[in-house]
Amino acid sequence: MRIITVSREFGSGGRELGKRIADNMGIAYFDREIISAVAEGSQFDESYVEAVLDRGMFRDIPVTFGRSIANMSNVSHTTQKIVAEQHRIITEMASHGDCVIVGRNADVLLRDMQPLKLFVYADMQSKINRCRSRAPEGEDLTDKEMAKMIKRIDKARARTHAFFSEVRWGAKEGYHLCVNTTDTDIKALAGILADYAEHWFSK
Amino acid sequence: MRIITVSREFGSGGRELGKRIADNMGIAYFDREIISAVAEGSQFDESYVEAVLDRGMFRDIPVTFGRSIANMSNVSHTTQKIVAEQHRIITEMASHGDCVIVGRNADVLLRDMQPLKLFVYADMQSKINRCRSRAPEGEDLTDKEMAKMIKRIDKARARTHAFFSEVRWGAKEGYHLCVNTTDTDIKALAGILADYAEHWFSK
Repeated sequence: MRIITVSREFGSGGRELGKRIADNMGIAYFDREIISAVAEGSQFDESYVEAVLDRGMFRDIPVTFGRSIANMSNVSHTTQKIVAEQHRIITEMASHGDCVIVGRNADVLLRDMQPLKLFVYADMQSKINRCRSRAPEGEDLTDKEMAKMIKRIDKARARTHAFFSEVRWGAKEGYHLCVNTTDTDIKALAGILADYAEHWFSK
Repeated sequence: MRIITVSREFGSGGRELGKRIADNMGIAYFDREIISAVAEGSQFDESYVEAVLDRGMFRDIPVTFGRSIANMSNVSHTTQKIVAEQHRIITEMASHGDCVIVGRNADVLLRDMQPLKLFVYADMQSKINRCRSRAPEGEDLTDKEMAKMIKRIDKARARTHAFFSEVRWGAKEGYHLCVNTTDTDIKALAGILADYAEHWFSK
């Protein structure tokens, strides 16, 4: 089974990169589909599920490392249910065959399936530029405001990740390959990384 | 000009990886040659040059970031001379044509030549195993002692790097690609990274 997880800083182009790697390799790609499936499975509204998983889950819990998923005593029953459903969904998706999964802490949740773990990052200015080119509605934000937003989103990702893993989100030790997309053509990069992945899994 | 710099944790196999990438691409490779050339150019003994550049240089200066190479006032005249000669030698070697340079802060010293900057790392146990397989004379060291030695060497690298750059040694932000060699066949990896580099420079 070839499973590639793509963790990424907001604005780094990791989502596009993951999608293109999957296309290059001719394998499945999962991202938003997971939220939808969790919503369906848990009977909660999709936007509520997203809020819990991406922002709300551990908002009030101080981030320390070494906590495990089993330590859910500080988390509401609803959150526990959604988190467990996400775990079930991701495991099920991955068990169906080769795939790329972007975000969702799949790197940790699927650790037993030995995924190829990528982390995608970029310089702040590069991330701001990418955000602007994607979301014209953000044009009224200054660079400083956009940087603040980007940091806030990444902080939430780090916080959620800390719940599942002792390894800090974004620390290179937790990944097989960390790729800087600053000044990089994502399309070309995806081709190279697809080759990289093919080689990696053939070993 | 295609210049690849390989920074690496001690025991990660970065040196072998760099050599093999150069072989794969059919380009020059520099490593120990630099020390020899600096010794010749500065008229100091090779082992003394190595001690200054790798261990002694900034031993007594607290590591803070944001210091530049220009700020040499706390460093002896001899060290200044050796550091300047190293800079001259590395720049000259790189200006002769495509090459891979392992270590020596070439990532920072050659920044104007826009090198492809790699960082090679691995889990501690993997590094210990690699050290043992390379240096049978280290067999009398316990794992704990070897880990301590590895950390000490890397700390010296980080300290020296801090003199030339504001970006922390080993922090992924300072590199284009960070590669984890844990459980990885260096030979196969070198082939993949040579492809990666070819693509990167053709963009």
